[in-house]
Amino acid sequence: MDEKLQKLRSRFSGKLDEAASAYIASIGFDRRLYRHDITGSIAHARMLGKTGIIKKAEADRIIAGLKDVLKDIESSKAKLTGDFEDIHMNVEAILIKKIGEVAGKLHTARSRNDQTALDLRLFVKDAIDETIGALCIIQSALITLAEANKTVVVPSYTHLQRAQPVLFAHYLLAYFEMFQRDVERLEDCLKRVDVMPLGSGALAGVAYPVDRAAVARELGFGDISRNSLDAVSDRDFVVEYEAAAALIMAHLSRLAEEVVLWSSAEFDFIEVDDAYATGSSIMPQKKNADTAELARGKTGRVFGHLLAMLTVLKGLPLAYNRDLQEDKEGLFDTVDTVVASLGVMAGLIATLKVKQDNMRAAAAGSYTIATDIADYLVKKGLPFRKAHGIVASLVRYAVSKGKKLSGLTLKEYRVLSPMFGRDVLDITVESSIASRSVSGGTALEQVDKALAQAKRLLSGQNGK
Amino acid sequence: MDEKLQKLRSRFSGKLDEAASAYIASIGFDRRLYRHDITGSIAHARMLGKTGIIKKAEADRIIAGLKDVLKDIESSKAKLTGDFEDIHMNVEAILIKKIGEVAGKLHTARSRNDQTALDLRLFVKDAIDETIGALCIIQSALITLAEANKTVVVPSYTHLQRAQPVLFAHYLLAYFEMFQRDVERLEDCLKRVDVMPLGSGALAGVAYPVDRAAVARELGFGDISRNSLDAVSDRDFVVEYEAAAALIMAHLSRLAEEVVLWSSAEFDFIEVDDAYATGSSIMPQKKNADTAELARGKTGRVFGHLLAMLTVLKGLPLAYNRDLQEDKEGLFDTVDTVVASLGVMAGLIATLKVKQDNMRAAAAGSYTIATDIADYLVKKGLPFRKAHGIVASLVRYAVSKGKKLSGLTLKEYRVLSPMFGRDVLDITVESSIASRSVSGGTALEQVDKALAQAKRLLSGQNGK
Amino acid sequence: MDEKLQKLRSRFSGKLDEAASAYIASIGFDRRLYRHDITGSIAHARMLGKTGIIKKAEADRIIAGLKDVLKDIESSKAKLTGDFEDIHMNVEAILIKKIGEVAGKLHTARSRNDQTALDLRLFVKDAIDETIGALCIIQSALITLAEANKTVVVPSYTHLQRAQPVLFAHYLLAYFEMFQRDVERLEDCLKRVDVMPLGSGALAGVAYPVDRAAVARELGFGDISRNSLDAVSDRDFVVEYEAAAALIMAHLSRLAEEVVLWSSAEFDFIEVDDAYATGSSIMPQKKNADTAELARGKTGRVFGHLLAMLTVLKGLPLAYNRDLQEDKEGLFDTVDTVVASLGVMAGLIATLKVKQDNMRAAAAGSYTIATDIADYLVKKGLPFRKAHGIVASLVRYAVSKGKKLSGLTLKEYRVLSPMFGRDVLDITVESSIASRSVSGGTALEQVDKALAQAKRLLSGQNGK
Amino acid sequence: MDEKLQKLRSRFSGKLDEAASAYIASIGFDRRLYRHDITGSIAHARMLGKTGIIKKAEADRIIAGLKDVLKDIESSKAKLTGDFEDIHMNVEAILIKKIGEVAGKLHTARSRNDQTALDLRLFVKDAIDETIGALCIIQSALITLAEANKTVVVPSYTHLQRAQPVLFAHYLLAYFEMFQRDVERLEDCLKRVDVMPLGSGALAGVAYPVDRAAVARELGFGDISRNSLDAVSDRDFVVEYEAAAALIMAHLSRLAEEVVLWSSAEFDFIEVDDAYATGSSIMPQKKNADTAELARGKTGRVFGHLLAMLTVLKGLPLAYNRDLQEDKEGLFDTVDTVVASLGVMAGLIATLKVKQDNMRAAAAGSYTIATDIADYLVKKGLPFRKAHGIVASLVRYAVSKGKKLSGLTLKEYRVLSPMFGRDVLDITVESSIASRSVSGGTALEQVDKALAQAKRLLSGQNGK
Repeated sequence: MDEKLQKLRSRFSGKLDEAASAYIASIGFDRRLYRHDITGSIAHARMLGKTGIIKKAEADRIIAGLKDVLKDIESSKAKLTGDFEDIHMNVEAILIKKIGEVAGKLHTARSRNDQTALDLRLFVKDAIDETIGALCIIQSALITLAEANKTVVVPSYTHLQRAQPVLFAHYLLAYFEMFQRDVERLEDCLKRVDVMPLGSGALAGVAYPVDRAAVARELGFGDISRNSLDAVSDRDFVVEYEAAAALIMAHLSRLAEEVVLWSSAEFDFIEVDDAYATGSSIMPQKKNADTAELARGKTGRVFGHLLAMLTVLKGLPLAYNRDLQEDKEGLFDTVDTVVASLGVMAGLIATLKVKQDNMRAAAAGSYTIATDIADYLVKKGLPFRKAHGIVASLVRYAVSKGKKLSGLTLKEYRVLSPMFGRDVLDITVESSIASRSVSGGTALEQVDKALAQAKRLLSGQNGK
Repeated sequence: MDEKLQKLRSRFSGKLDEAASAYIASIGFDRRLYRHDITGSIAHARMLGKTGIIKKAEADRIIAGLKDVLKDIESSKAKLTGDFEDIHMNVEAILIKKIGEVAGKLHTARSRNDQTALDLRLFVKDAIDETIGALCIIQSALITLAEANKTVVVPSYTHLQRAQPVLFAHYLLAYFEMFQRDVERLEDCLKRVDVMPLGSGALAGVAYPVDRAAVARELGFGDISRNSLDAVSDRDFVVEYEAAAALIMAHLSRLAEEVVLWSSAEFDFIEVDDAYATGSSIMPQKKNADTAELARGKTGRVFGHLLAMLTVLKGLPLAYNRDLQEDKEGLFDTVDTVVASLGVMAGLIATLKVKQDNMRAAAAGSYTIATDIADYLVKKGLPFRKAHGIVASLVRYAVSKGKKLSGLTLKEYRVLSPMFGRDVLDITVESSIASRSVSGGTALEQVDKALAQAKRLLSGQNGK
Repeated sequence: MDEKLQKLRSRFSGKLDEAASAYIASIGFDRRLYRHDITGSIAHARMLGKTGIIKKAEADRIIAGLKDVLKDIESSKAKLTGDFEDIHMNVEAILIKKIGEVAGKLHTARSRNDQTALDLRLFVKDAIDETIGALCIIQSALITLAEANKTVVVPSYTHLQRAQPVLFAHYLLAYFEMFQRDVERLEDCLKRVDVMPLGSGALAGVAYPVDRAAVARELGFGDISRNSLDAVSDRDFVVEYEAAAALIMAHLSRLAEEVVLWSSAEFDFIEVDDAYATGSSIMPQKKNADTAELARGKTGRVFGHLLAMLTVLKGLPLAYNRDLQEDKEGLFDTVDTVVASLGVMAGLIATLKVKQDNMRAAAAGSYTIATDIADYLVKKGLPFRKAHGIVASLVRYAVSKGKKLSGLTLKEYRVLSPMFGRDVLDITVESSIASRSVSGGTALEQVDKALAQAKRLLSGQNGK
Repeated sequence: MDEKLQKLRSRFSGKLDEAASAYIASIGFDRRLYRHDITGSIAHARMLGKTGIIKKAEADRIIAGLKDVLKDIESSKAKLTGDFEDIHMNVEAILIKKIGEVAGKLHTARSRNDQTALDLRLFVKDAIDETIGALCIIQSALITLAEANKTVVVPSYTHLQRAQPVLFAHYLLAYFEMFQRDVERLEDCLKRVDVMPLGSGALAGVAYPVDRAAVARELGFGDISRNSLDAVSDRDFVVEYEAAAALIMAHLSRLAEEVVLWSSAEFDFIEVDDAYATGSSIMPQKKNADTAELARGKTGRVFGHLLAMLTVLKGLPLAYNRDLQEDKEGLFDTVDTVVASLGVMAGLIATLKVKQDNMRAAAAGSYTIATDIADYLVKKGLPFRKAHGIVASLVRYAVSKGKKLSGLTLKEYRVLSPMFGRDVLDITVESSIASRSVSGGTALEQVDKALAQAKRLLSGQNGK
């Protein structure tokens, strides 16, 4: 072990066991926070200098040193090593090598507890930005595909049974809505991340006249934490980000399921571009939508990380406990998984080949207009339940005769109800869609409005 | 099976298997939604009448009938029975008995899919109100206890080792902050619940000139849904409420852990009032904080419900699938558990006996002022790391002599560093607390400010 | 509160808060254990009498009393009420009413801690029996369906793309294997449940010369617990049962997914019997496999209960903590869900209509024999990778010509490789299946062997 | 992309998108399986040669080549690179470079689907061995500590309230029992892992006369899989291992909680050796049991991995789907976490300093003998409930007088019941322990027996 770390152990006579040392080291994963750590330290040092807690010149030397450390890490000139258990110790050790003992003053009025909290908050703020960016890209891909296929008809499903015909664009916009909620949820989450914890010290607040607002300003935080004990033990924002991520993955898993279904020989509604498909080692005829399957499968790990973090927090007394170190790996993997999955699925959507004839045939060649026929009777004055019963008998009759509804004659209709007039034969997939012109419905003018609104929402988000 | 349900099955020749019928029935739990269901139906009927989709007189008869049904259910005059698989069918059956065939018109321009979504959203809106109310009550209990014990000193802990002395009020306010975030998270969640889905029909929108905005207004919704497919298959708001609830339970589990720890003979900081404690069947001397333990244990079920709902959603294609019926029981139990747990823990806090002498003794009779001594050296110009090393040696020396830091003489201090002056002996638990007068820190004037702010926040929430 | 419960509180001066009392009461759900509780008490009383810890006559009176209590509960003559917090207190209260003060002697050498552990173990033993029984029924349904459709051909899938033709019976037997593992897992779990905890007292063992082995014998346990502290705080067996149940539900969710897929208009491989299907409130043409969807959805709650119980255990110090009361509701719901889901899915399988022509057409009208063509080349001496490449080109060529492989001429084959001889045209779906005659493969003689073995395994299990 | 991988894509005209390629690549983590992959391939190649499916000489060249590949990888001479998406492709590519085209014959009668299943099963078999080994080490540490402190008395707790005095050795053996169940659970799990899947091909079985039993024998498997579809899609054994691991972590979290509690200044029962403790960056007096806290925290990730894998499986149709690739990372991390946590906690236990005076003082200086006094009255003929009531009053009286039970006079005893004789004053912590001489109880002779049995069990396991 390094002399530096030993200092922290100066109360102890014994050395840390080697396996234990590896067990508690976090440098293997918290190295990812080096930029956030140094940025935070620079702001802290500047404030220490300005408030006179340390001398201005000392602050300047520390800041210059930290900037050098950042460059050295980014250029791999400086190595982050397991000799120091975490990123904070690593950065400090490099800084000491660079500027000597004055480096020790950086730790004035700060503890690893509030420093760690700061770094993680800076990271999650970036992660939210990145995730919203990835959401916007898939939203954009959905809009583009919808506009390119605006009049394409597809059967919609309940219970995976064909239900009613809808515009394919309408179908795609349902996913736009899900991702829109994800964006808004992350924006709300951000409010609780955007809180600067430095100044909380180990847990009771620091005993120096720090200027917390100045640090918050320099680092772009909207608020400062209100209770020091809470500030060093709060990981709610990690859970909240992970819960939002879990819903994103749930949405992606639904979309992925549709891609897999629709690519099957049985549905044959779409073809995934070669760029997002793979072959088989043994079956040369296969073209598999592996990317979509993986996106669906990766839902599991993100759910798992959420539950893992909740489990960590369960029953922890105040304030900092080492258990909290378990906040990072799951979070990092969540961000990576969500951003990569959104990216790959956006690419898949953007290059999707739509087989519109197959879609339309499926919509038309079934009983999807049965509701419209029931509505026909309702509009003639029959209570809905009665109309439902008549059309159900009609379907049963048609099935028994091996006919579609469109193949029935007026006479056959009238056997079941004399209320049927000739105009019942005018009911088609197209008339069905056109009739659902309620706000939020599948009629073309409504889908046009929805597309326009989606583009407005999206451009607002991108502008941020 | 009932004639009513049979109508839905009129396409079928066979009867539903008895076990299958019990398996799919939801009346055992969705009966809880009767009020929301009827309220939604009244608004729907009124709109149907106003828009002329049905006759005004028909609408009036339906509305009057529904009001009677509500009264009959609340007075137990009408029974909700397993003869009908869900609450919607039950209400409709009672209505038919009351007003005859015209009842069938209520289903015009509506499907069970959008009706179910509406009922659940109305329920979650109420649940959020109730949960915020319960959070305010425990927040209020924390403030009251904090004010009554404002100058009580307690050791704060990291790693369950005594760290630094803090005011007990500061400690309690850390929990206030957690619950405050919970309130704000629920308020954000509400925005995504507060969306009226009626008009989405089965999944494609209805083919009638409905006035969705009017229904939303009557029911107190802030918005209407923008995509019919999404509207009938969206259960994100259930997940989001459950995720917020999971964090509330995580917070309660932490508070409960402290109550259990602090009630132990070893800590002996508090005594739980008899109203919240139980005895033992075999050990007459025991006084157990069972309520706190149960609150801690109930964390599990709320985490479980969250995971359950996420699992249900994984991989579901659009739009409605029967899997979604699994949204309710976990949600209901989550609301009940969270509200009851908050209530019981609030009562426990409100009646807590604080043993302030024991708390102070624990804070004073340990090494909790070591940081202050290190800070003393830092203020004399020593880099923090050096100061840290010296005080660590000091502690080691004191431990070896069986002394507390307050028991060391100036001479002993000066063996380790000549920088120690007589004023080092002035460092006490009280001076330590007073020195942490940074915003968010534990000094009395900061805690006073925090208390004032907490009361402002709370009265704002209660005023809603 | 009742006088009885008050006695437990005799150390206390204050009353239990009403909400707290409701919060900690378990009679609402542990009433389900009444039979196990009384059975356990009878065995305990008999042993107390035999060992002379209490008088034989006292033991006899207690046993007779307990038998009466059991009858009274089963005939609803005695009511289990919220006046007593749990089933143990309820039973004791009824017993006291029946036989007076001697009832108090039943609690000799026993605590609620070991009593609760005993009751739960008796329950889980029954639950395992019941679950294995339900597994055997669905296994039997799978075998019957397989035998009735032994030569039916179906495409098998990877990535939901048609891969290779298999016998439908082979497909069904894959699910038999999953459920067989479930049976064996439960049998292994049973070994750790089958341990009698009575005699552990509150946690340190009892101070009476009890005969633990006699109690174990009377109750049918194979072993007694070896450490009293562990015995009262061990709930591993609940977790282990729930983990086994989670896998059962995972298997059912896979089977349910196939039922939903195969019932779709696109696949159209099967028709679910009316007894397991439902209609739509708005779309009269729908026939939905709701039971399968619900089974798939209920996977969520069982996963949730498993996580809930693990969360409860996390970080609990020895020995009994009230958190453990949370063991029951999730367990009860798990048992009910798993048994009901297996039952309903077994019924669905038993009544399934197989559309063998559609299955065969799907298997034949695709490229599922491509592997066989590659194998043909391999057998002629080509390395597998080369052969794979040639057949891939062949498929690509066929796709571009809109042909199936069976539609290619020998000349077309030979363009890609001169190694193709006339016998390549003999490769069919049937020859493909017949060629996979490795143990565990899909050739008919292998499936016959597998069926025979499955029946042997099943009859062995049923015989237990 | 590499030419090799392109061959798999020979049906395709387009290239894989770069991000998609990174997304689906598994070489980043499945490289860990290189040894299992090569071992499996050697056995497969040998069988191909022996059965004449390929020529003996070809088989020999392949086997020799594979052995070289293994050496090259282990000596880092060969690099596993992202040019090939997984470990199987990497090994094959290196082999081709070494021995040329004949390498392609290795893939005869094998698919990546059954190959992957084989590799993972070989890995889990090793993982179970390693985990059982680690469990034995901590069991051994517990036994050693127990024997070294056999007569040390400690209070046992329920609800974290002191309950009854027990031997510290008895306390430690409770954890021995938990780990013993873990060992047995893993042994049972092994039965379902120990099944050889090769010969299942892609999913339907291979069309070659392979000798599956020979491969199983060479690889040390006890059985071969019975259904090819099941064999390539079964990941139950991963779930089962992870569920067993979750319970191990639950046990460790309980032990860790005790270590943290007992190391606190308030309990002060033990001191964690410096080798397993850390200091604080700001509080020089701190000695934190970080290793125990981390073990407790890491419970979360293992629970999370279990849930992740279950989520992956939910709703997957047969047979192989790419989602299954998500089986590895969680599994690898589970094994690493469990083995490391057991190792570190074993080291902590082995070096633990026991403060037996503090333990005894806590046991004696409380009301832990109250049950014994109640038992005293019971033995004099009082029903238990009556005796309980009297002793409860006694405790209440003692508490009000600020006395321990041992400080009461006989006169004071007799105020509450004339049944108290002089011998009641003989009841001590030691007599209490000695009296609990039931099997599984805390009396010294029982603990001696338990220790002997534990050592027998342990030596049996180690001998394996």
